[in-house]
Amino acid sequence: MKKFINDLESVMRESLGQRATNKVALLSGGGSGHEPLHAGFVGRGMLDAACAGQVFTSPTPDQMLAAAEAVHADRGVLFIVKNYAGDMMNFQMAAEMMELENAMVIVNDDVAVENSTHTTGRRGVAGTVMVEKIVGAAAEAGASLAECKFLGDRVNAATASMGVAFTSCTVPAAGRATFDIGDDEMEVGVGIHGEPGRRREKIKPASMIVEDLLGAIVRDLQPVSGSEVLLHVNGFGGTPLMELHLLYHCAATQLRAQGLKPVRSLVGNYTTALEMSGASLTVTVLDAEMKSLWDAPVHTAALRW
Amino acid sequence: MKKFINDLESVMRESLGQRATNKVALLSGGGSGHEPLHAGFVGRGMLDAACAGQVFTSPTPDQMLAAAEAVHADRGVLFIVKNYAGDMMNFQMAAEMMELENAMVIVNDDVAVENSTHTTGRRGVAGTVMVEKIVGAAAEAGASLAECKFLGDRVNAATASMGVAFTSCTVPAAGRATFDIGDDEMEVGVGIHGEPGRRREKIKPASMIVEDLLGAIVRDLQPVSGSEVLLHVNGFGGTPLMELHLLYHCAATQLRAQGLKPVRSLVGNYTTALEMSGASLTVTVLDAEMKSLWDAPVHTAALRW
Repeated sequence: MKKFINDLESVMRESLGQRATNKVALLSGGGSGHEPLHAGFVGRGMLDAACAGQVFTSPTPDQMLAAAEAVHADRGVLFIVKNYAGDMMNFQMAAEMMELENAMVIVNDDVAVENSTHTTGRRGVAGTVMVEKIVGAAAEAGASLAECKFLGDRVNAATASMGVAFTSCTVPAAGRATFDIGDDEMEVGVGIHGEPGRRREKIKPASMIVEDLLGAIVRDLQPVSGSEVLLHVNGFGGTPLMELHLLYHCAATQLRAQGLKPVRSLVGNYTTALEMSGASLTVTVLDAEMKSLWDAPVHTAALRW
Repeated sequence: MKKFINDLESVMRESLGQRATNKVALLSGGGSGHEPLHAGFVGRGMLDAACAGQVFTSPTPDQMLAAAEAVHADRGVLFIVKNYAGDMMNFQMAAEMMELENAMVIVNDDVAVENSTHTTGRRGVAGTVMVEKIVGAAAEAGASLAECKFLGDRVNAATASMGVAFTSCTVPAAGRATFDIGDDEMEVGVGIHGEPGRRREKIKPASMIVEDLLGAIVRDLQPVSGSEVLLHVNGFGGTPLMELHLLYHCAATQLRAQGLKPVRSLVGNYTTALEMSGASLTVTVLDAEMKSLWDAPVHTAALRW
């Protein structure tokens, strides 16, 4: 076997980075099928552990307890949870069973629909990456559990997302497409499990799609003119990077035309829905603290600088 | 066709970013087979154009002239060239034939061998990405041709690399492996075309491989104790990301033990040698200017933040 390796025991620890024990531990998770979210974000400057359930199914409270125990969090555990009924129930149960001090940040950045198939309230989607990165940097820098919780809620409130799908995804256990869609149609406001969004429409030029998505996002955030923003274009799994960059170009141009400043960007497949074709836009309105925490070094499998 | 697109005419321009015309144009290139280098680095904050030759073969002077013309460089053209005999000859010929003001930065970061199969002097390898990124940010910020050339030489001088290969690559036109290597052997100091390095050795634990590579790099750079450095782990194409992260962990740990501060990182397949299995380490000793230019936004297919 020709591998860059020291020994089998240490291979995971040495490839995904050392865990600092004198910091607040960040723990996230949820159903599988959204890779690299969340396991790809475990490492220095971001998450301490991720719990993966079955495809599109919440992990169980005992997984979460085991993960929390494994990270030896002397300064407490912050759960970062996407707002879906199953995840909320199980993470809350784990939080109650835990002896360690803990708190929870609920991510609900999807502005497409108010309630949905799997949620009471808005869904948590690609903006989760912004919360995990920014709070991860704060925890790494020594922030307390209360400070991390406060910051996480603040990032979530400053973040809004909306997506569109060209095709469905297929959950392996179901063996068939989650939804049917015509060859010239798109689902506007789709969720990351292929859940329905706002409406079904004929496809149209990218800049008009971006106008619809950004319109809903900016109406929700109501940023002050001149605000610096982070613009994230997230692919759902089946869309080429080239198209994601094209969406970025359209979205950044439109934001600038509205007097906003896209000063940071992230373009790629980060919060996927299996092989679904489509993409979402996420905007986070940055203040100086969030911007500097976004810029702080991160060393994970899926995000690193 | 379901694609995020506005029209066919504008698809490349809109996906790879707008070109600013009132800046120094950065033009690079070389043989193919090292993807994403160089075409993946064309975009805002990095290169304006890349010329790709056949696999491991220099592009021709007329390609370079056509590229220089296409970028409308009112403020001059900076060629960034890896030190290989063919590239040097053709880029110099293009530079002489051009009417536009131009200058050249020669990258020769590979400390493994003094002269090699394809070079007089040291080879240009993965450190090219550091030169292209840092000078790209300066050009974007309005630096003059002379300032870009001076900075490029300075980054090259502050950068050193060395690699190791477990397997050979196969050039399609050759149809057979470039070199033979035993199942338990590695080529230490290998080039990015599968050229021989310093010696053939039995494979050993990753931390010992890193010790050898970093030793040669640090001896070459002789950084002042306490220096901030950028640490780049580059895969040659056939090595899993997980192993590259493990190498990063070993290298960062060893740098810190030597009193250096790895404050910026880049881990992934950026300067490849087709499907060769192996990796290189690159260290750039940063000053405040280089660090801030490294951090500046970049919007290309292969590098973006």
